[in-house]
Amino acid sequence: MPEAASAAATRATIGDSEFDRDTAVNPRAPGVYDLDLSAGWTIINAVNGGYLLAVLGRALGDALPHPDPFTVSAHYLTASRPGPAVVRTETVRTGRTLSTGQASLLQYDDEGNEVERIRVLASYGDLDTLPDDVRTSAEPPAIPSMDQCFGPEDGPAPVEGSSAIADRLMLKLDPATLGWALGQPSGRGEMRAWFGLADGRDADPLSLLLAVDALPPTAFELGLKGWVPTVELTVHVRCRPAPGPLRVSITTRNLAGGFLEEDAEVWDSADRLVAQSRQLARVRLG
Amino acid sequence: MPEAASAAATRATIGDSEFDRDTAVNPRAPGVYDLDLSAGWTIINAVNGGYLLAVLGRALGDALPHPDPFTVSAHYLTASRPGPAVVRTETVRTGRTLSTGQASLLQYDDEGNEVERIRVLASYGDLDTLPDDVRTSAEPPAIPSMDQCFGPEDGPAPVEGSSAIADRLMLKLDPATLGWALGQPSGRGEMRAWFGLADGRDADPLSLLLAVDALPPTAFELGLKGWVPTVELTVHVRCRPAPGPLRVSITTRNLAGGFLEEDAEVWDSADRLVAQSRQLARVRLG
Repeated sequence: MPEAASAAATRATIGDSEFDRDTAVNPRAPGVYDLDLSAGWTIINAVNGGYLLAVLGRALGDALPHPDPFTVSAHYLTASRPGPAVVRTETVRTGRTLSTGQASLLQYDDEGNEVERIRVLASYGDLDTLPDDVRTSAEPPAIPSMDQCFGPEDGPAPVEGSSAIADRLMLKLDPATLGWALGQPSGRGEMRAWFGLADGRDADPLSLLLAVDALPPTAFELGLKGWVPTVELTVHVRCRPAPGPLRVSITTRNLAGGFLEEDAEVWDSADRLVAQSRQLARVRLG
Repeated sequence: MPEAASAAATRATIGDSEFDRDTAVNPRAPGVYDLDLSAGWTIINAVNGGYLLAVLGRALGDALPHPDPFTVSAHYLTASRPGPAVVRTETVRTGRTLSTGQASLLQYDDEGNEVERIRVLASYGDLDTLPDDVRTSAEPPAIPSMDQCFGPEDGPAPVEGSSAIADRLMLKLDPATLGWALGQPSGRGEMRAWFGLADGRDADPLSLLLAVDALPPTAFELGLKGWVPTVELTVHVRCRPAPGPLRVSITTRNLAGGFLEEDAEVWDSADRLVAQSRQLARVRLG
């Protein structure tokens, strides 16, 4: 079979993909959703924070009267692990164009008690009803074409431990932000990459919640090693992304006092700034 | 009396100032605080969002075991008005160095029922225990010296309606971001000012929550008129501010679809980037 035809035959779609299956939630009662956190979205044995946010976003999209996340604020409390979980949502306010909800992701301890992993506040709307007036002054990141960028498959695995998420992403990093992988971190708090899902599924508002937290930490380019756990992450989804690969550009400018911020911008193939996020993360210095 | 001596005699201090009195909360029961929203922090008849955030921050600082806001995420639900209010807090998780809480600001309808104004998630810590390692790559804003900047008292009031907050702030705007006040908006989403409290009280972590939302909207420089209500505001407090005036620099780069983001940076007199925030706000286009 010609390569293009076989690729088309197997390419995943929004609603039928690894991402959709692994972020699916099963309503148990009004506002209560059972799910299984997949082991497929781990990085160095930690479940990726953006994947977790997408799970919560899926549940809130079902619970609230508006379909799309507009602004989502998540505080990460305890480390999630693959396995059974529950999302409990609360509708805080419903309005004509925006609704606000709260959601908690919980898992179970050895006695079966619920332990809260993440709590989220989010305001939802309908991206398809937004006016077309676009006056964005920001410009897409300067990143080389995809064939000049590199993914994990192009070199030795730079970190030990399970990085299953690498198999689920199409990630091609700007060589200017890859010094860390060669033992020569640039010293600049920057990370840029082309981003997609490995099975070819196009981006949608929920997968944007994953995209903002799916690149290697800027801390690596700042010469820091080890885990950079997210304390809090807020994402603004501003536009339904066009089909095709995304460009993600992350910047850190305030590494101080054992914390840093990561500002992420996500640009789609139509050069729209479709999502912006900022997270506060802890670092181990020295 | 020499001017310097009388100024010293009347200058407010952290703990004894307009800001402290107007953000004071009175514990009614564990986690429940009564208060009165002051009419003194209104802009065009709306109670300033940063003042409201400071009120919530005050209550959470009392309720949680850690004293200082590190990251606060607020979703604004309904418009607050001066008068009686209550803050209800919940402790979500307490840890060794960070605690997380949730808080709601509520007021009363004509029947005396509680109506939620704002819901907040916040993680608190102790700023005084942070290591001294500062590797901030961001640089303070280019803003002229204070005597070359202008406050509301230097010109006619540009907007109608009650702007009581102007009497409580020392605000000196960069003339490069004042075109709107002269009918000639620059078209750039920027607003910069020297910021302090009119009674001379120094800044502290709580007043930083006010500072990030106390300047005129960048929308004015983008040629938009009217109200720019905040949907969501997340503030990172990174450092206890040094005494003396602050510099606040706000940028908007993504005005699109009837929404815009405002990114604020707050710099203290020691050139530390003491707070960063991003808010999502609605605009009226056309």
